Amino acid sequence: MHGLPEVRPRDDLVGLLAAALATAGERLRDDDVLIVAQKVVSKSEGRVVHLPDVVPGPRALEMARESGKDPRQLEVVLSETKEIVRWERGVLISETRHGFVCANAGVDRSNAGAPDTVVLLPVDPDASAARIRGEIADRMGATVAVVITDTFGRAWREGHTNVAIGIAGLPALKRYIGQRDPEGYELRVTEIAVADEIAGAAELVMGKLDRCPVAIVRGLALEDSDETAREYVRPAARDLFR
Amino acid sequence: MHGLPEVRPRDDLVGLLAAALATAGERLRDDDVLIVAQKVVSKSEGRVVHLPDVVPGPRALEMARESGKDPRQLEVVLSETKEIVRWERGVLISETRHGFVCANAGVDRSNAGAPDTVVLLPVDPDASAARIRGEIADRMGATVAVVITDTFGRAWREGHTNVAIGIAGLPALKRYIGQRDPEGYELRVTEIAVADEIAGAAELVMGKLDRCPVAIVRGLALEDSDETAREYVRPAARDLFR
Repeated sequence: MHGLPEVRPRDDLVGLLAAALATAGERLRDDDVLIVAQKVVSKSEGRVVHLPDVVPGPRALEMARESGKDPRQLEVVLSETKEIVRWERGVLISETRHGFVCANAGVDRSNAGAPDTVVLLPVDPDASAARIRGEIADRMGATVAVVITDTFGRAWREGHTNVAIGIAGLPALKRYIGQRDPEGYELRVTEIAVADEIAGAAELVMGKLDRCPVAIVRGLALEDSDETAREYVRPAARDLFR
Repeated sequence: MHGLPEVRPRDDLVGLLAAALATAGERLRDDDVLIVAQKVVSKSEGRVVHLPDVVPGPRALEMARESGKDPRQLEVVLSETKEIVRWERGVLISETRHGFVCANAGVDRSNAGAPDTVVLLPVDPDASAARIRGEIADRMGATVAVVITDTFGRAWREGHTNVAIGIAGLPALKRYIGQRDPEGYELRVTEIAVADEIAGAAELVMGKLDRCPVAIVRGLALEDSDETAREYVRPAARDLFR
């Protein structure tokens, strides 16, 4: 969906969305899935940092010397990092405070909306999704599911995909545990990451440069669910690739 | 799309697809993306192994002792494996002969269509996709793109998603390299794995137990491309997570 203006801190994101929908002659329906790019959610929540305000610490300065990167941005990344998973060849893979493993703890300078500014992930993306869902129900009268997405790289595989970092009103995982195929053989793949697949599907129409931070997926018969995107966090002890 | 019968070795997959489409009153159009589950492609190509015919070697027998797994199935997995990436706690992550990193080299016993049978990945999934695309053009008069999908796990993240293992007629990666946001800042994420996102989107309607091995994605304005799914293979030397 196009028509959203540049989002600024403390903007009323659901109000902007309602206005854009009205202009487009579209309205949300019950059981729609609303996909919202992390960046507009973060901006509306004030999760932006003006780099001239940042004083890099010794670790950020050392990493800047090793890599040629901006030490102020590295300082912000480190402040969002629970654990550094890899720091090699100028690539920083972090575990974020939420438990997600991604480049630069999700801190990003592109499409920040202002010079010398970086955007951080929401503090609690599931709470953000639940809040958006609640406001849409209250103000627009529609019971939708919400998926907040970011673009993550993968191990072993080139290219990035959109994944779900916060969800409300739909399951994270579709479970086939214990289910059997027509021959009676138990299924090998037992959990499908449906919200991640929805996030990726939405990216196909959202793009990166199109100022299209919102998409609607309609017609999926998903059950309601209290699950959060934390379902995707694999505990480090069970992770063979740390 | 439903209505495909159980696929057997040497079955005419495109013929079965044409019949199912006709029954459903549907037809393929130019620029459709046809998503086909790996399993029906593999079966039609005879990539099935009857386990009683397999004699496990010493490595498979040793791994079976360690894990309680079927040594015959492990023998087949090893025969499809270029390199073992992890073998821990009964989980085998392989690099396949194609260069994909996935569990059990893509060898799977579920939905095999017969008892004591495993299904292997196609020898060359890109060639399979190109062949299906060519046959559809010849026999059905439509210029479609084709994505052959399998369900892979991910590092760090719970749940599996569908990914593209063979493609024809669409790009693997959408490239933003050198493109700049409205502030003039170069984009951080430069390559989006569009065929993987299409594979994941299709999984949402295909499921695992619904005997629905084919889906159509319509309305995406994708450019034609000669790229293959090998674009996704990250060279081991550039991979921080081997």
